[in-house]
Amino acid sequence: MKRRDILAAAGVGLAATALAGCKEEAKSSAAPQEGSSAQTFTWKMVTSWPKNFPGVGVGAERFAKLVDEMSNGRLKVKVYAAGELVPALEVFDAVSRGTAEMGHGAPYYWKGKVPAAQFFCALPFGPNAQEMNAWLHYGGGQALWEEVYKPFGVLPMACGNTGVQTAGWFNKEMNSVDDFKGLKMRTPGLGGEVLTKMGGTVVNMPAGEIFTAMQTGAIDATEWIGPYNDLALGLHKAAKYYYTPGWQEPSVLFELDINIKAWETLPADLKAIVRAAARDVNGDMLDDYNAKNMEALEQLKADGVEVRRLPDEVLARLKEVAGEVVEASAAADPAAAKVWEHQKAYLQRLYDYAEVADKDIYNIRG
Amino acid sequence: MKRRDILAAAGVGLAATALAGCKEEAKSSAAPQEGSSAQTFTWKMVTSWPKNFPGVGVGAERFAKLVDEMSNGRLKVKVYAAGELVPALEVFDAVSRGTAEMGHGAPYYWKGKVPAAQFFCALPFGPNAQEMNAWLHYGGGQALWEEVYKPFGVLPMACGNTGVQTAGWFNKEMNSVDDFKGLKMRTPGLGGEVLTKMGGTVVNMPAGEIFTAMQTGAIDATEWIGPYNDLALGLHKAAKYYYTPGWQEPSVLFELDINIKAWETLPADLKAIVRAAARDVNGDMLDDYNAKNMEALEQLKADGVEVRRLPDEVLARLKEVAGEVVEASAAADPAAAKVWEHQKAYLQRLYDYAEVADKDIYNIRG
Repeated sequence: MKRRDILAAAGVGLAATALAGCKEEAKSSAAPQEGSSAQTFTWKMVTSWPKNFPGVGVGAERFAKLVDEMSNGRLKVKVYAAGELVPALEVFDAVSRGTAEMGHGAPYYWKGKVPAAQFFCALPFGPNAQEMNAWLHYGGGQALWEEVYKPFGVLPMACGNTGVQTAGWFNKEMNSVDDFKGLKMRTPGLGGEVLTKMGGTVVNMPAGEIFTAMQTGAIDATEWIGPYNDLALGLHKAAKYYYTPGWQEPSVLFELDINIKAWETLPADLKAIVRAAARDVNGDMLDDYNAKNMEALEQLKADGVEVRRLPDEVLARLKEVAGEVVEASAAADPAAAKVWEHQKAYLQRLYDYAEVADKDIYNIRG
Repeated sequence: MKRRDILAAAGVGLAATALAGCKEEAKSSAAPQEGSSAQTFTWKMVTSWPKNFPGVGVGAERFAKLVDEMSNGRLKVKVYAAGELVPALEVFDAVSRGTAEMGHGAPYYWKGKVPAAQFFCALPFGPNAQEMNAWLHYGGGQALWEEVYKPFGVLPMACGNTGVQTAGWFNKEMNSVDDFKGLKMRTPGLGGEVLTKMGGTVVNMPAGEIFTAMQTGAIDATEWIGPYNDLALGLHKAAKYYYTPGWQEPSVLFELDINIKAWETLPADLKAIVRAAARDVNGDMLDDYNAKNMEALEQLKADGVEVRRLPDEVLARLKEVAGEVVEASAAADPAAAKVWEHQKAYLQRLYDYAEVADKDIYNIRG
């Protein structure tokens, strides 16, 4: 699920609603407070998600509920679905300019504005959720993230993860590298760039159009998120094969964006509450996805979906091309290059460690 | 790291200190509060950890600090190292009888009292941290855990994880199943039961004695936790080979114990704060261990440690024996049997899912 889909899935062009929501309701302009205060804050959190969107949307709601409960209502966070206040892809902008004090989205949605952002989100053949979290919280990633967002007046925090995704839905068998030639596939972002280099054609479209496009043959393939969200979209009724693994997104990290000026008006206890709520959701959403993806894949199999694995030869070529795409993407922007240089070196060390630890635990189950 | 080690590492027999700490300082006997209140609570948290113990001990301190900050000092949690108030292995008992309102330890430390507890902690060839969290938080595990602890007046919450451990330190090569015959190894718990069935001899001892026992040849092998904590203990100076993977503990989950009567006196906001702080630490400690284990293993290798993998043949036999040990352990107690029946079925579904998701992401990195 990427930029354009979210955009349309959530309904673009609700500019009137957005403007109406822009009136200054927030009471966050008071002087900074130490410790605590009886003052009540009413903040807006714009999101990139449709209302009640499973997994990530539910996680954003959980964040607001936790903050409300922990602060006993002193920090009310009103969650806006995409398009209610601002369009899905303008979450970062809205927080940056102070239209909303908070936002929840995927860092790579604003890579057009902040190219380095995608390195805090997802990388083809890149880190899983656990590795991304280790780099962010104990490997120096968080400091780099804050440095990159600071010029925009935004403080980022990790706030959720999809875990491992799938390679997507295909209406033909994918047996060799040649099968990508001429393939019309809905797959945005870096994955889309890889497809193009493999000889395919990227045809992006909003979520609501994917099902019909697959059924009519307008596209041959599509990726979305993973079994949990894919089942909800009904893609198994429009495609024959479900391919794994999700090489293009071994994990997708979601971010909480906070307007720094608003942040500075919060007393210390509310700051601590916001930080802990974000960390709670960061773990909880992953637990949710892991459980529900498992259940949904069982359901899909029961419904007759043929789950297949991309052949090794294909994965090897995809990895090669993905490496080129990531390097080119990093090289095109100085901040991205700096982040990637740091992240690449650190992740390689984690990958080496995983060989004798996490990876091997999966192997020995036999 | 298991029962007896912690016991002695932390200093047993500090009964005088324990008794001195038992005087009623806590202000938790007030009537239950809804929402919030200005009332200040001063709670004790007894732990199974020596002062400033890396990883898990630091995590317990983080929990107390988070609660203090979020509540602006309305809930002060004073952390006691093992032996300061009660011995390391009496944390659960102390919370159960109300000597302390909270405790932090590893569920399997009290398996003598609550045999089912170990199924919420660690299992040989069992779940990794991510899988244990999915089962607890979205698979029904938490409800079972609360049911098992309720008769003791204790509310448990997940609050930290070591991630993948190592198989341990050996002063001889482990090339075949026969190499376990006559092996004198410090390895407690279910791992120890497996060793005994393999023909070895379990020689348990506190942490402070392991180094000397290895150097003098009193034991041939030992396991402790993982690179981060093992390096701190200096085991690489007393053993030649460091074997992976940690089949006996693919993850160890730590628990926050709360006395239910004390819990019921907290207003809703403080309850929410405690819950979120526990979830924060549950993720944060794993990030800490993953980063530091990686760094420590690099250091150990640089110091000349020979890192080896147990042969497939050995791992296959260990798995077989471990399966028997776990089944026997579950069968010996009705509550344990109920928990294991549920957990076993759910984990198998997660393991099947991992084959096409998490496991395969490690494989395709090539």
